[in-house]
Amino acid sequence: MGIQTNKKGLLVVLSGPSGAGKGTVCSALKEEVPELVYSVSATTRPPRKGEVEGVNYFFKSKEAFQRMINQGELLEWAKYVNNYYGTPRTFVEERLAQGHDVLLEIEVQGAYQVKKVFPEGVFIFLLPPSMEELRARIQGRGTESKDTVEDRMKAAREELGHARYYDYLVVNDKVAKSCQQIHCILEAEHLRRERIFQENPNWLEGI
Amino acid sequence: MGIQTNKKGLLVVLSGPSGAGKGTVCSALKEEVPELVYSVSATTRPPRKGEVEGVNYFFKSKEAFQRMINQGELLEWAKYVNNYYGTPRTFVEERLAQGHDVLLEIEVQGAYQVKKVFPEGVFIFLLPPSMEELRARIQGRGTESKDTVEDRMKAAREELGHARYYDYLVVNDKVAKSCQQIHCILEAEHLRRERIFQENPNWLEGI
Repeated sequence: MGIQTNKKGLLVVLSGPSGAGKGTVCSALKEEVPELVYSVSATTRPPRKGEVEGVNYFFKSKEAFQRMINQGELLEWAKYVNNYYGTPRTFVEERLAQGHDVLLEIEVQGAYQVKKVFPEGVFIFLLPPSMEELRARIQGRGTESKDTVEDRMKAAREELGHARYYDYLVVNDKVAKSCQQIHCILEAEHLRRERIFQENPNWLEGI
Repeated sequence: MGIQTNKKGLLVVLSGPSGAGKGTVCSALKEEVPELVYSVSATTRPPRKGEVEGVNYFFKSKEAFQRMINQGELLEWAKYVNNYYGTPRTFVEERLAQGHDVLLEIEVQGAYQVKKVFPEGVFIFLLPPSMEELRARIQGRGTESKDTVEDRMKAAREELGHARYYDYLVVNDKVAKSCQQIHCILEAEHLRRERIFQENPNWLEGI
């Protein structure tokens, strides 16, 4: 019959300071690893034109969102500018059980919450190549006042300290390179002996 | 100045039962990962035509080999058919210090010895896709008697049990796929936070 490789999906958490380029890397990763499933967030923010329920977000009332928090249905959640955002647990767990790798692109605080519930996840920290480059990226958006840039730089410096809690560190100097590296991390994690035997203690007997 | 990635080389041990295809995978890996340095073994076997000292082997007298064993100059060694074979420690350590990844393609007993001296090494176990395929490969060489085939199958079954001591398991059904997977393992290991911080505790300050 031949030996089976690891069938359960990996929970992959991609985080890092704001300005590291998480969004850009995630978009590029959809080309590089098309089989990767992206977690869909729940939010209390009203849908924008063209946004589709269950594709862009799960749209929830504040009451429904609060109920999800209370009943432990969110892997992580946070409040930004009067709206709540969170990661529904069921969506993620179902996809993992089906054997899909699931990617969560979230802020460091959210990642910290997920780590407590899913210690077996693969935690990848994306870093800017330098603080100067980070500043250039934040300023480059051109939408931020001088004070806001300083605030964001200060926040980024604090967020960088979270690197110590992650499994892998990816320096995002070139998006294509970062994508390849993340692809390799997923490939390698599926081959880890610990993971394979944890899931199937009799794996060797399949040979 | 920007952040530096992990500069010290990885010690990579590729092992697995005889018949798994270690030699074939190693040859193909020279194309896939040209920057990988291959450890050169010491042996008491006389050089064959065309073999070059320091390239194919370090050729040693039995006395010199015994001295290397006694002085702890070998990472691992074993005796096959009246000749000794071993991995000189200095060659490996020098290349690692220069930042090269170094590959050791060795038998499971040797890998077990290396693990004790180099627990931070990356230990990759190569498996045949099935016992039937392994038998076909051993028989396919056409040089073995029926009894020898059975002996080798029995030895391979025992060697398979060593899989439990390795970091990664690679099922060698297709050589090109195995090579890519090993390439990814090396790439991912260089990005492991633990390894990066162990080597350079102030790594984050470089950013």
